[in-house]
Amino acid sequence: MSQASASQPTFRAVDLIRNKRDGGALSDAEIGYLIAGCTDGSIPDYQLSAWLMAVLLRGMTREETAALTNAMLHSGEVLDLSSLPAKKVDKHSTGGVGDKTSLVLAPLVATGGLNVPMISGRGLGHTGGTLDKLEAIPAFRVGLPVPEFERVLKACGCSMIGQTEQIAPADRKLYALRDVTATVESPYLICASIMSKKLAEGTDALVLDVKTGSGAFMKKEEDAVFLADLMVETGERMGKQMVALITDMNQPLGRMVGNALEVQECIEVLHGGGPADLCELCFELAAWMFYLGGSCKTVSAGKELSKQIIASGKAFERFRQMVELQGGDVAVIDDPTRLPRTKLTVEVPSTRAGYVTAILCEQVGTACVMLGGGRERKEDSVDPAVGVVIHKKIGDKVAIGESLCTIHCHSDAQAMRVKSMLDESYEIAVAPAQKPLLVHRVIYKGEH
Amino acid sequence: MSQASASQPTFRAVDLIRNKRDGGALSDAEIGYLIAGCTDGSIPDYQLSAWLMAVLLRGMTREETAALTNAMLHSGEVLDLSSLPAKKVDKHSTGGVGDKTSLVLAPLVATGGLNVPMISGRGLGHTGGTLDKLEAIPAFRVGLPVPEFERVLKACGCSMIGQTEQIAPADRKLYALRDVTATVESPYLICASIMSKKLAEGTDALVLDVKTGSGAFMKKEEDAVFLADLMVETGERMGKQMVALITDMNQPLGRMVGNALEVQECIEVLHGGGPADLCELCFELAAWMFYLGGSCKTVSAGKELSKQIIASGKAFERFRQMVELQGGDVAVIDDPTRLPRTKLTVEVPSTRAGYVTAILCEQVGTACVMLGGGRERKEDSVDPAVGVVIHKKIGDKVAIGESLCTIHCHSDAQAMRVKSMLDESYEIAVAPAQKPLLVHRVIYKGEH
Repeated sequence: MSQASASQPTFRAVDLIRNKRDGGALSDAEIGYLIAGCTDGSIPDYQLSAWLMAVLLRGMTREETAALTNAMLHSGEVLDLSSLPAKKVDKHSTGGVGDKTSLVLAPLVATGGLNVPMISGRGLGHTGGTLDKLEAIPAFRVGLPVPEFERVLKACGCSMIGQTEQIAPADRKLYALRDVTATVESPYLICASIMSKKLAEGTDALVLDVKTGSGAFMKKEEDAVFLADLMVETGERMGKQMVALITDMNQPLGRMVGNALEVQECIEVLHGGGPADLCELCFELAAWMFYLGGSCKTVSAGKELSKQIIASGKAFERFRQMVELQGGDVAVIDDPTRLPRTKLTVEVPSTRAGYVTAILCEQVGTACVMLGGGRERKEDSVDPAVGVVIHKKIGDKVAIGESLCTIHCHSDAQAMRVKSMLDESYEIAVAPAQKPLLVHRVIYKGEH
Repeated sequence: MSQASASQPTFRAVDLIRNKRDGGALSDAEIGYLIAGCTDGSIPDYQLSAWLMAVLLRGMTREETAALTNAMLHSGEVLDLSSLPAKKVDKHSTGGVGDKTSLVLAPLVATGGLNVPMISGRGLGHTGGTLDKLEAIPAFRVGLPVPEFERVLKACGCSMIGQTEQIAPADRKLYALRDVTATVESPYLICASIMSKKLAEGTDALVLDVKTGSGAFMKKEEDAVFLADLMVETGERMGKQMVALITDMNQPLGRMVGNALEVQECIEVLHGGGPADLCELCFELAAWMFYLGGSCKTVSAGKELSKQIIASGKAFERFRQMVELQGGDVAVIDDPTRLPRTKLTVEVPSTRAGYVTAILCEQVGTACVMLGGGRERKEDSVDPAVGVVIHKKIGDKVAIGESLCTIHCHSDAQAMRVKSMLDESYEIAVAPAQKPLLVHRVIYKGEH
């Protein structure tokens, strides 16, 4: 018999890769070994990437997905927010175009008495990111250290920051590898990546907004449902209250796409205005946050509560307070015309008459990125002022020459680069089309 | 439009990985890009290993396999042996236990007038390697530089050396990666690895001995046939004459397993003796080498020619000459009792009576490795003297207490470590069993 000692590794990475390659399931201890080796660098990247590809092609069991999430979560710091008196709830969106609900939800739900410790990301690809939007507010600090994050949370019930270096370092390393090895798209890896970061912020309940449609990462609804179900089950296995809403991303949410423009639109919603679809989604998501957080007995009661809080003006006040506590210039909150804006706006007139039947929503997001409002690579900087204001959405009637959308940009040359792209992203037909349903499906395993 | 310049890479590795991941086929240029990047280090290991795993799980087309073989072949030096007057033929075996035909075939076929430029490997896992066997001959040099290899070839028609640093460097690098990422077993990668090295030696024709059975890497015959067919087609696409024999590896070939012991058995065969199965396989393989090399009109004529050459004693003389030209001590060739040998031999008596019905052949090979006759890791050194001499093979009758095999070792402790393993590798039953057919199948696409 070979002599085993405590200093010898328990497993060999190659055996674990082979097992996954052959369609087997790894144990919690085996997955823990891989993620510990990823975090401390003892397992080389070439073994991790072979394992990632095997996972992408072979999949994972629910047990493996939970074990991976758990191992990644514990690869770094897990916030302990138990000193906060109220229940902690958060929302995560898989990303879309004009998807700005976080800025409304955090103060709205905090006003209702819950705590919202929100750790968000930056935009990548055709989608925007909450941090980029917040940074359109001059001097707003998204990089608060954890003690300051807790202080803001205690003071106003919500705080919005970026991922720190200490949270889920294994995820950062694996994500960088996935990006260059064509292993991003695995729902199991996506689930573990999202959930490990969200659970690290110490939330009790999590509402997932899983987007589907032409502007989402998951274009097919079945893929969105699969991922949503996986995340809900994984969170529940880890003792969290979970729900996922499968929501429509076949057109931009609301009318504004672009960082400062989206802050402006959120302020409109917090003042009781704003476009109907954005308001409706904010109320739906807030309702579930209130319901999971125990603030109301039914989801529909949560929706009523949300509307009352908005109508009271207190959610806006709470947002203003959070901006102030995080160093942001509240003058732009009080007067959104002071937000960064371009001198030039260029209309995109329709060349066709009829009804909008579809929008290539990813193309609208890409146009905004090309204007400088998003980033093609992680290290790119973002222009807060540029963007697109959507005038026509699915179901709307359009005349020739009527503006489909307005480009906010710094020069005609910049507008020319995206104008035909925006025009072509509209499908216009003679027959009217129905407005898409906003919430396609709710995945919730408890009672409501 | 983006501006393309000659200095920009034509492809992005991540896109090629994604294509293979999704079951697509890469073009010759795309595969060439990956292998060039592997060779010069510009594509990192973690991308190569993700691609290797995608290949293992998704497979390759015949065109891709040929393109990969060709790119790996041209990653290094390709020998130009066109100055040699005779046709060049070689044999490659996928590896087995007691598989020692190369030492007989090279001088035998050279005596028949063809050239045999043989570049061989070392043993790994439970199988032996030709280089390790040759090095059991004191002072034999397997590391000849190419000009000396050519001089030996010109002088005696055959030469046997190891792979140089200059031959197929992409294969060395990829093999090292495959070894640690559980991507060794792909038939496409095995084919490209074998064929790129074999074609680099400048042979015109290649006889493949693809082993199947309990002592082979391909335990299932269908896997052996698949690999054989792939290699034959790949060689033919590259203008080589090809044949593959699917041969039995359900028991050790011949009676000797161990480096010096196997040299001794080859000398017996070259003297017209030796065990029947080893002689038969040597004659079959030599016959095909003669046939493909144009030395005879039919394969059966090639077999007759082989027997005549052995009977003449000239093949032994040619072997002796090659050993001398490569610096080996011919005294051990003239008197094989002078080969390295252990002082101790230990019998493995049968505890059962009946007929041998099966041998766990891999276990016999592993016993030899455990004695020090093979290597568990590439960097291990090999003991030439140790080994196992097989007395009972499939179909043989056995009495209780009769020796199944003899262990050649340096101590009783060493013998004890493998004795029960060897005993247990024998399956003995009451009913007699048939001796296995030696050549299961021939894969040849020409006429014969």
